[in-house]
Amino acid sequence: MTDTLIKVDLNQPAPENEQIHNRWHPDIPMACWVKPGDDFILETYDWTGGAIKNDDDASDVRDVDLSTVHYLSGPVGVQGAEPGDLLVVELLDIGAKQDSLWGFNGFFSKNNGGGFLTDYFPDAQKSIWDFEGMFTKSRHIPGVRFAGLIHPGLIGCLPDPKLLSAWNEREQALIDTNPTRVPPLANPPFAATAHAGKASGTLRDKIAAEGARTVPPREHGGNCDIKDLSRGSKIFFPVYVDGAGLSVGDLHFSQGDGEITFCGAIEMAGWVHMKVEVIKGGMAKYGIKNPIFKPSPIVPTYNNYLIFEGISVDDNGKQAYLDVNLAYQQACLNAIEYLKKFGYSGAQGYSLLGSAPVQGHISGVVDIPNACATLWLPTDIFEFDINPSAAGPTRFLDGSINMPIAYDK
Amino acid sequence: MTDTLIKVDLNQPAPENEQIHNRWHPDIPMACWVKPGDDFILETYDWTGGAIKNDDDASDVRDVDLSTVHYLSGPVGVQGAEPGDLLVVELLDIGAKQDSLWGFNGFFSKNNGGGFLTDYFPDAQKSIWDFEGMFTKSRHIPGVRFAGLIHPGLIGCLPDPKLLSAWNEREQALIDTNPTRVPPLANPPFAATAHAGKASGTLRDKIAAEGARTVPPREHGGNCDIKDLSRGSKIFFPVYVDGAGLSVGDLHFSQGDGEITFCGAIEMAGWVHMKVEVIKGGMAKYGIKNPIFKPSPIVPTYNNYLIFEGISVDDNGKQAYLDVNLAYQQACLNAIEYLKKFGYSGAQGYSLLGSAPVQGHISGVVDIPNACATLWLPTDIFEFDINPSAAGPTRFLDGSINMPIAYDK
Amino acid sequence: MTDTLIKVDLNQPAPENEQIHNRWHPDIPMACWVKPGDDFILETYDWTGGAIKNDDDASDVRDVDLSTVHYLSGPVGVQGAEPGDLLVVELLDIGAKQDSLWGFNGFFSKNNGGGFLTDYFPDAQKSIWDFEGMFTKSRHIPGVRFAGLIHPGLIGCLPDPKLLSAWNEREQALIDTNPTRVPPLANPPFAATAHAGKASGTLRDKIAAEGARTVPPREHGGNCDIKDLSRGSKIFFPVYVDGAGLSVGDLHFSQGDGEITFCGAIEMAGWVHMKVEVIKGGMAKYGIKNPIFKPSPIVPTYNNYLIFEGISVDDNGKQAYLDVNLAYQQACLNAIEYLKKFGYSGAQGYSLLGSAPVQGHISGVVDIPNACATLWLPTDIFEFDINPSAAGPTRFLDGSINMPIAYDK
Amino acid sequence: MTDTLIKVDLNQPAPENEQIHNRWHPDIPMACWVKPGDDFILETYDWTGGAIKNDDDASDVRDVDLSTVHYLSGPVGVQGAEPGDLLVVELLDIGAKQDSLWGFNGFFSKNNGGGFLTDYFPDAQKSIWDFEGMFTKSRHIPGVRFAGLIHPGLIGCLPDPKLLSAWNEREQALIDTNPTRVPPLANPPFAATAHAGKASGTLRDKIAAEGARTVPPREHGGNCDIKDLSRGSKIFFPVYVDGAGLSVGDLHFSQGDGEITFCGAIEMAGWVHMKVEVIKGGMAKYGIKNPIFKPSPIVPTYNNYLIFEGISVDDNGKQAYLDVNLAYQQACLNAIEYLKKFGYSGAQGYSLLGSAPVQGHISGVVDIPNACATLWLPTDIFEFDINPSAAGPTRFLDGSINMPIAYDK
Repeated sequence: MTDTLIKVDLNQPAPENEQIHNRWHPDIPMACWVKPGDDFILETYDWTGGAIKNDDDASDVRDVDLSTVHYLSGPVGVQGAEPGDLLVVELLDIGAKQDSLWGFNGFFSKNNGGGFLTDYFPDAQKSIWDFEGMFTKSRHIPGVRFAGLIHPGLIGCLPDPKLLSAWNEREQALIDTNPTRVPPLANPPFAATAHAGKASGTLRDKIAAEGARTVPPREHGGNCDIKDLSRGSKIFFPVYVDGAGLSVGDLHFSQGDGEITFCGAIEMAGWVHMKVEVIKGGMAKYGIKNPIFKPSPIVPTYNNYLIFEGISVDDNGKQAYLDVNLAYQQACLNAIEYLKKFGYSGAQGYSLLGSAPVQGHISGVVDIPNACATLWLPTDIFEFDINPSAAGPTRFLDGSINMPIAYDK
Repeated sequence: MTDTLIKVDLNQPAPENEQIHNRWHPDIPMACWVKPGDDFILETYDWTGGAIKNDDDASDVRDVDLSTVHYLSGPVGVQGAEPGDLLVVELLDIGAKQDSLWGFNGFFSKNNGGGFLTDYFPDAQKSIWDFEGMFTKSRHIPGVRFAGLIHPGLIGCLPDPKLLSAWNEREQALIDTNPTRVPPLANPPFAATAHAGKASGTLRDKIAAEGARTVPPREHGGNCDIKDLSRGSKIFFPVYVDGAGLSVGDLHFSQGDGEITFCGAIEMAGWVHMKVEVIKGGMAKYGIKNPIFKPSPIVPTYNNYLIFEGISVDDNGKQAYLDVNLAYQQACLNAIEYLKKFGYSGAQGYSLLGSAPVQGHISGVVDIPNACATLWLPTDIFEFDINPSAAGPTRFLDGSINMPIAYDK
Repeated sequence: MTDTLIKVDLNQPAPENEQIHNRWHPDIPMACWVKPGDDFILETYDWTGGAIKNDDDASDVRDVDLSTVHYLSGPVGVQGAEPGDLLVVELLDIGAKQDSLWGFNGFFSKNNGGGFLTDYFPDAQKSIWDFEGMFTKSRHIPGVRFAGLIHPGLIGCLPDPKLLSAWNEREQALIDTNPTRVPPLANPPFAATAHAGKASGTLRDKIAAEGARTVPPREHGGNCDIKDLSRGSKIFFPVYVDGAGLSVGDLHFSQGDGEITFCGAIEMAGWVHMKVEVIKGGMAKYGIKNPIFKPSPIVPTYNNYLIFEGISVDDNGKQAYLDVNLAYQQACLNAIEYLKKFGYSGAQGYSLLGSAPVQGHISGVVDIPNACATLWLPTDIFEFDINPSAAGPTRFLDGSINMPIAYDK
Repeated sequence: MTDTLIKVDLNQPAPENEQIHNRWHPDIPMACWVKPGDDFILETYDWTGGAIKNDDDASDVRDVDLSTVHYLSGPVGVQGAEPGDLLVVELLDIGAKQDSLWGFNGFFSKNNGGGFLTDYFPDAQKSIWDFEGMFTKSRHIPGVRFAGLIHPGLIGCLPDPKLLSAWNEREQALIDTNPTRVPPLANPPFAATAHAGKASGTLRDKIAAEGARTVPPREHGGNCDIKDLSRGSKIFFPVYVDGAGLSVGDLHFSQGDGEITFCGAIEMAGWVHMKVEVIKGGMAKYGIKNPIFKPSPIVPTYNNYLIFEGISVDDNGKQAYLDVNLAYQQACLNAIEYLKKFGYSGAQGYSLLGSAPVQGHISGVVDIPNACATLWLPTDIFEFDINPSAAGPTRFLDGSINMPIAYDK
């Protein structure tokens, strides 16, 4: 039986678990140690540490304190790993905790984090997804059911002091360009809600004061939210500190490219079974700055797609220059508009694009002035025929079911 | 035998062929007419009309006149198609012209169009690709060979006057923000090199004066450069004018997501066998603004990938806000750096990313302040093992072969 | 948390567990009951009930008592299911028991069951496979590692008395054509080792006397050993008795088409999470005699194959008439011969073909007098390059490791 | 432009074309010569040399003279190829002749060749398939349309005298076991209709007298009818004579595993673009008896299947011993019965199973006494939903269209 090196009791508050942390800092003490070649299991909280409930009330999404996230399991020290090495992590398997066979998707209030389409969906909403073995469906979004492309939204190694400084400095410089923006441009260190694992006293205070927030992906990987980093994949991480310090969390049962809904994919508490190896000096050998990875040989196959194009012109007809973000936003809006013709609400469509194994491709990025992005909607996840035909669409949903909403107070 | 409605003689200059045009305008006369249900073949020039030669000299890429592109075959009038309809186009097959079994890829000089990585590769370079049936390889980039994901870079219907005006106005407004930028932000109508098909006299002059340039993708589709719009796919185009006016060109033997090299994919002259149907009133029925499409059931399968991450921090460590373009640029640069370890030059790596069936995914777009993009490099296109290992990379190439370069005069 | 309706303690002998049985008979009492729409978990023994050990001694394979197999979990009664219905079973997930993360493959002695190539490998041998999350590898067959295509070798519903009689009669008629054959043509009921679940006394004796053996697949499904009946698939079973009486067992971590090694695939103890529905009168509605099924959307993807042909001419050059069995046997032998060139022993090659996700296709079956069968060997399961090249094969294995063998006493 | 080394004029009788032959014999003169590394095109007749017409009358299928088939293009001599080498043939592309964009499928009369289900469909019938680029559909079998998995049914090298003798001897020995069987067990040499290419006079007579018939697949490959030997695949053929002598013909636009209808797949006239290389001494290096091959990276993807099981018990309830042929026959009949529920005639179902990209798997071959075979029917080739549901099947076809039939005279 494989050893579970980090255990999570969902009834215990995440900040009280000493093998959990929510900031990036080189001084966070290792939660445990392993050797190259070892395989082991880490349990994880959901990214919010249990703030979102399996109910029909979105006020928890509205009121979430984003300074507390993400609750990560680790850091795991790997004997012999040194700065400049590559830590090879194979995700042998990932699953939900047996006492928590559900997940949540939602979008934050525009005043508290927002999401990719926050200008169109400014209020907090959520959908709950039940897991049936390898499949999921939602009581808030009828007519879809699909297999999970299970993955950690967040995984990476501890930064060294130099890298940490670079992060904090460049992000503060960005914040300084518009410090009052809502939502903010970035989040600086914030001591009050920092959880530094086993650290206590002045060490804890130092980590809390300096520790980088966990939301952005960075050179070490971190919160990449790459749906294809799924169980069965193999990742090559840069190592910056002795022992590497691998942490993981923010498990997703499924997600669409972009994680456009931000809160988030289909978020869940669970466990990761992984194996580690080390490539000595691998960063220089392969010219590695950011992690690279090999995808899994075992992922859900949904090969029938309906593909939506978007270009970098906004809703007011204003022309942007090769802006892939805008192009993808337009592709998303085009897909939502299409889904409405079959009876979905806009919010349901938006949530679905954030949850299902949707692909987002950078299709054209040089044809001035318009970028072109495409959103690939898998048609086999629907329990009815979503394809266009000469007869026109049939409304399969009567609108009686919608996603819970919680307006700002 | 299927009728070839538009023929192309590669020895005849494209501007002399009356079934070819290089601007978008509602008044361009139909080159031919078909009925719904018809299938037919259109031959095409390469996008430059033959400006680039199958040789080892990149000066043709350096000196290309971008005001002349793209040379399109059409417009094809479809009887009964009216504004508001959807024109359903099935790409039954696509191929190279038998007397031109090769294609080109390259990047323009930064002073004449540039490319996605023009700051890193500012000079004109090209690679020539030979076709062997369904496969291609290049004498300028050894060690790779792959099956073509053949597709038209450009396909769409004629705009109506209102849409045309909107295009010209919004693009001019963008140009006006920085009219002297090199490369330019967008290209306004340019009469001197306009080719309006069968139009002559004042009609030709009107089209030349007003006709939108063909480089950007727009609401009608156009130059989307979507590699997955491949033979076997079915596209649903908005119709704006009576008869629809479908044009096609810019055939690619293969391309990576983004067409990052701009000049371009693996560009070729060829033919398209297509079939058309009409969905009456389809734009309103399905809420269509941009084209949607179903991908082909028959595409090359390269399922083993090595995936590179990029985040929206530039080479100087400057932090951008959720900028997918920058994140994808960084992912591309990371991949090129990796390829260098196996012996490729930077230019060869860049050209390869623009030519091979590389995927570009918008992986994370909400984790402030960093967007995350991933570049998926198929490993089976290489004739050697490109995967990372504990032993480190082997240099398979000795650097004796490189891509032709032509410095600015 | 999903209910586990049948529990298995691997330390308890299978014949003592009242929710287990090893014969097919309409009178076996239901082990438990569920309703249409329910999902639930059944734990299972390995098919031999623990007779094969995780060690390096093949005497257990040699000495196995085949009259005791297969130990099945069930029957599960489904409320409302009646003869003529279809029982729809969705395999929501399948896994190994956490205290038994390994499996076995082997071939029986020719004198005790044999296997598909028993004339070439007449002695008992085995290989042990360790599970690492979704992957497996064997200390007895170096150089391969692959993801599991996990599935039950055996699943089906109870027969009614008429069907049971037909089975016993037709199989006895076959036996009677050559009653002393080694291995036998079929196995008749055998009371001594019958396990009838909860039944006792005269009922148990009746079941033991009449109960059909579990080895062959039959109209109800049963021991089909279809590797693609994997987790995520949905099966439509004929119902013959009130309550259907669904039983399952003989879990495989992986198997090649044909299960040519007989003992067997990669055999394991584990659990099945399933969900049941009923289609009333479905047998007549769809003309169903044998089960039909939809494969899973989530299976390991090994798309690179090396394919071996075989024709129906035996090793002595004798011509058979359109004999697919012989053709597949020849294809297997051809593959084994090829594998030997890379250093594998014949037994290792044989075991690998029975264990890995090998495909066996009926390629041509009308071209008199030769059938043609093909064996598809996935090349990505090997840790080295198994493809042919002008340079010839490299011996990656030195022969120091082989599979345990136990000669007949 | 690639050289076309063998040209076929469909208006010229195949026996008059000196680069065509219809027997296997070492003395057939090479039709042309190439060098290793060359790529070239060979045109081909359909396998019957034009005997079957694009009309609605099946009498041509009934009356076909099977002693005339197959008309093959070649042999192509490869300089330097010697006995014991492997000839590596890459199928760069394959297509239909532009003046013959259609194909035929059918089953022979039981009295003239029959087919896999000839006891159920004893009369000659045919269906005609029209090609639309990469797709095909039939006016005789409504409701299906699919992309072609184009391949040669027959390809291989000339035998040497020893191998030829072995073929003729073993096949005659089989015939001798039941010389009057209808259909026959095998076909011996038959001089009257032999076509020996360029050979004339006594050489021609020798070849005609001794030449092996082309119907069966044999050690050299030959008429394997492997649907996956499609364009893009790479085949490694044993070489028996100096120059190898590669011949090809019997092109199929599409075929199901087994080619169960015998007449045949979707048969067509066309062309093959191929490239040859030689592996010196490759037969011994790799232990090759029959050809091996690598499948194409570019094949139609139909991943949604409905799978039918069959076991080796015949319609009368008689038990056979591990008979895969019978099991596959039963799986085919099960599928046909299912298709009837949607309105197809039995003949249409049978023809569809022979024409569409159906898979036939050897699923279980050791579970005495029943073999289990599975037939994989791709559901996306249907224009309506063919899946089972609680509502039962809908009859999409009204039976007004059926396949032409020609009863024996």
